[in-house]
Amino acid sequence: MRAIYPEEKRLLVEDALHRFFPSEDNYPQVIYKAMRHSLFSGGKRFRPVLTLLSAETFGCAPERVLPTACAIEYIHTYSLIHDDLPAIDNDDLRRGQPTCHVLFGEDIAILAGNALFAEAFYLVSAKQQTDDPLKIIRVIGELASASGARGMVGGQVMDVLSSGRRVDFATLNFIHTHKTGELIKAAARVGAILAGASEEELAIITEYAHHLGLAFQITDDILDVVGETVLFGKKIGSDREQLKPTFPGTFGLERSRELAREEMDKAKEALTRLKDKDTRALANLAEFVRERES
Amino acid sequence: MRAIYPEEKRLLVEDALHRFFPSEDNYPQVIYKAMRHSLFSGGKRFRPVLTLLSAETFGCAPERVLPTACAIEYIHTYSLIHDDLPAIDNDDLRRGQPTCHVLFGEDIAILAGNALFAEAFYLVSAKQQTDDPLKIIRVIGELASASGARGMVGGQVMDVLSSGRRVDFATLNFIHTHKTGELIKAAARVGAILAGASEEELAIITEYAHHLGLAFQITDDILDVVGETVLFGKKIGSDREQLKPTFPGTFGLERSRELAREEMDKAKEALTRLKDKDTRALANLAEFVRERES
Repeated sequence: MRAIYPEEKRLLVEDALHRFFPSEDNYPQVIYKAMRHSLFSGGKRFRPVLTLLSAETFGCAPERVLPTACAIEYIHTYSLIHDDLPAIDNDDLRRGQPTCHVLFGEDIAILAGNALFAEAFYLVSAKQQTDDPLKIIRVIGELASASGARGMVGGQVMDVLSSGRRVDFATLNFIHTHKTGELIKAAARVGAILAGASEEELAIITEYAHHLGLAFQITDDILDVVGETVLFGKKIGSDREQLKPTFPGTFGLERSRELAREEMDKAKEALTRLKDKDTRALANLAEFVRERES
Repeated sequence: MRAIYPEEKRLLVEDALHRFFPSEDNYPQVIYKAMRHSLFSGGKRFRPVLTLLSAETFGCAPERVLPTACAIEYIHTYSLIHDDLPAIDNDDLRRGQPTCHVLFGEDIAILAGNALFAEAFYLVSAKQQTDDPLKIIRVIGELASASGARGMVGGQVMDVLSSGRRVDFATLNFIHTHKTGELIKAAARVGAILAGASEEELAIITEYAHHLGLAFQITDDILDVVGETVLFGKKIGSDREQLKPTFPGTFGLERSRELAREEMDKAKEALTRLKDKDTRALANLAEFVRERES
């Protein structure tokens, strides 16, 4: 039986994004239009859903952590807008839609990414999600660290520098654990932090998310090679065209599929060490990631 | 007698920036080099100095608010890196040095700006500056709001859209109050917030900073027209070349000088309403801004 995506959580996120995000009536309209174009172009809302599932696993109502969950989606969206820029990946299609800079120009796209990033911290600071303000400060530190040079940007830098050349496994691993891995890890961690998980539990959920992130990235790389445009919404093979470092490019397709399964197994194994918690939803998410076709 | 810049505060900031900011030994080195190139290229550290003076005015030791003060300088520096990009102002010189993208490439410059922005929030969240965590959350909200679409980015957007065309006064005013004004206002406000100023005092310091920011922008525009490259460190007249909306372009030089004085007077007038506070340092800063030659 195939794993089913937690659609009810995705809908919670979708609804919250619409409630939280400033409308297009704000001035200057073009920047809100540009941000909303990228934020509301579909997608599984994987990272915020992970935050909700993580919070729920540790006994917190998922609704409570929606501001932080949505902030992570803002950060993810900002990173996509900037990745697509002519100066970086130069992609003109994303999720079947023209990318932000194609529609609004490079200058507005840069600024739209920046404004989404700022709005993420604004949202987390503005909405009451816990009675303990120290937890909010910790969450902000996690998001800032995961998205900056210590995390996502560090991975993007190595990705940019590696483009067009063969890279060794250590570099490939650094790129993936940082460019996508750190934010996925943070998504799981902040849910657990807001829910009041212990440091020991936090270490376990971090290990889960580390392997989940790698499985996610490996399947992403595989889908880029074998997927169909209609499902995947971006130009298939665009990584290969640019000679981006990928798992299939380094290990071949078969071995990459094995690696994705191994990472999923490790993610699920970590969960078994969470005593007295119902971890089925998180285990299901790991299975979904390995099986996904888009 | 001319106003003297509070050099001892600038040195405090300079020293703290060196202590707080990650070294070039971090991996990937190039991103730390790019960030440090722009962060340590001189400058008066006007915004963080304002934060220190504001905190001190409300009875807080300036040393205590250094993390927040430095975070504001990170945000300011990130905005300069992105403003200079080919897709935005396309400037290749800043403070007499090649701009970030000239030295490191457009991709790394975009990412260096992003990483500086992230590091700002990381720094504020990581360093203990007060016993009241709610104040830190409020400070984070102020910085996020001032630097996003509600603030700085909103101004940058209108600046970009107005480039090459004559704009009316309302638009010019929006650009200046947002592109530079909001962050200057936030710099003064967060110092007061961390120092425990009352809401009434906060309103007064906000009014002071609003006029200070306008005076700053007007003199900046004037210096762009009349300054000498050696003093000002960027290509003189570069605003005019690009037909950027400026005060001298709209009102002429003489009237712009009058306007700068009027804003300085309004800033100082606001300070007189702060009872029982020694506001001489803030008044001196306003005078310095009007008189400055670089």
